Amino acid sequence: MAEEVVLLDFWPSPFGMRVRVALTEKGIKYEYKEEDLRNKSALLLHMNPIHKKIPVLIHNGKPVSESLIQIQYIDETWNDKSPLLPSDPYRKAIARFWADFVDKKIYDLGRKIWTTKGEEQEAAKKEFVECLKLLEVELGDKPYFGGENLGYVDVVLVPFYSWFYTYEKCGNVGIEAECPKLIAWAKRCLQKESVSKSLPDQEKVYGFVLQMKKFLGIE
Amino acid sequence: MAEEVVLLDFWPSPFGMRVRVALTEKGIKYEYKEEDLRNKSALLLHMNPIHKKIPVLIHNGKPVSESLIQIQYIDETWNDKSPLLPSDPYRKAIARFWADFVDKKIYDLGRKIWTTKGEEQEAAKKEFVECLKLLEVELGDKPYFGGENLGYVDVVLVPFYSWFYTYEKCGNVGIEAECPKLIAWAKRCLQKESVSKSLPDQEKVYGFVLQMKKFLGIE
Repeated sequence: MAEEVVLLDFWPSPFGMRVRVALTEKGIKYEYKEEDLRNKSALLLHMNPIHKKIPVLIHNGKPVSESLIQIQYIDETWNDKSPLLPSDPYRKAIARFWADFVDKKIYDLGRKIWTTKGEEQEAAKKEFVECLKLLEVELGDKPYFGGENLGYVDVVLVPFYSWFYTYEKCGNVGIEAECPKLIAWAKRCLQKESVSKSLPDQEKVYGFVLQMKKFLGIE
Repeated sequence: MAEEVVLLDFWPSPFGMRVRVALTEKGIKYEYKEEDLRNKSALLLHMNPIHKKIPVLIHNGKPVSESLIQIQYIDETWNDKSPLLPSDPYRKAIARFWADFVDKKIYDLGRKIWTTKGEEQEAAKKEFVECLKLLEVELGDKPYFGGENLGYVDVVLVPFYSWFYTYEKCGNVGIEAECPKLIAWAKRCLQKESVSKSLPDQEKVYGFVLQMKKFLGIE
């Protein structure tokens, strides 16, 4: 059967980027459909009626929502190449733990860095850097979180690299000075076409955030 | 090799209950260790240094944290009986979606019901019931979310049943009147020993919450 894969997405979304990276790693051709989040398409509302959020992966007409679930679906469906999750249950649990950690911490803290000021921003910056340092410890001396190859945690975390310049500019924080090993890891990931083609330019994301700040009435 | 399975837990925790149900469904003997959350054990801090939270599942000395990850680990490790997740990737993604939905919504809304008053409590009650109704639609006419047998979503959701009496008393909301099919499902689950032995009595949970309210200075 011919595979029909559609991705409803929004270009600056780190969640969408994850799915783009995973599909590209697997060599899956897909149709990318950009959503206007202020005027969501009937297709998006139909395919994700519960959360009404991008990304939505539609495989042969059937929707899968939530990026961590999508990546696991992609890994389990196209399991003939580029495995993302380890097969060993314990190593799988550890990969899931760190993916969950990224999900619970990085987006919200990053958002606080560009939407708040003063004490709240300082607290967010501090916790953000602490989280990145924990991730550096988990990475250790491996080239990727997945070991010798790009894996689940790499795919989940690397999209935030395209937001780092925004966090640095908005929060006046030097992420590379704080976490040089993590930045080296991100640059290593970007040497892969699956990553470089799926992530937007850092300055383009920053331009988007400046517009968003204006729209939200944040200085 | 003799299996050594230890669970660091706290009796009213719906997250801990999930793991108890999953282990019991699989017929795994485990050592239950009750934690005092105001004075966490050195073992807990050592085994879950990132979140410092229960439940922690320790299998042959190796820790797994976060209840959804623990249940998947249990299902993948002891895969010879009582499968919890479907094997088909799409059905697996759907089960993960609803487990994630329960995780994102039910605990926080339930907590708001017993910790807030007035408008905030009313909003939480309304959204809580809406979420349960969505779950009822997903359940449909199946005996369990897992189909003919108890599955992942059942294990993830059923512990909250032991808190329903608390939500009803604190929030003056009639959950059974609003969601009769979900209550019938919960009672069906409770006919299984794996569930009935893992969930505390509803009135005992309510007694605990009354103490907590006193401790937190909430009327």
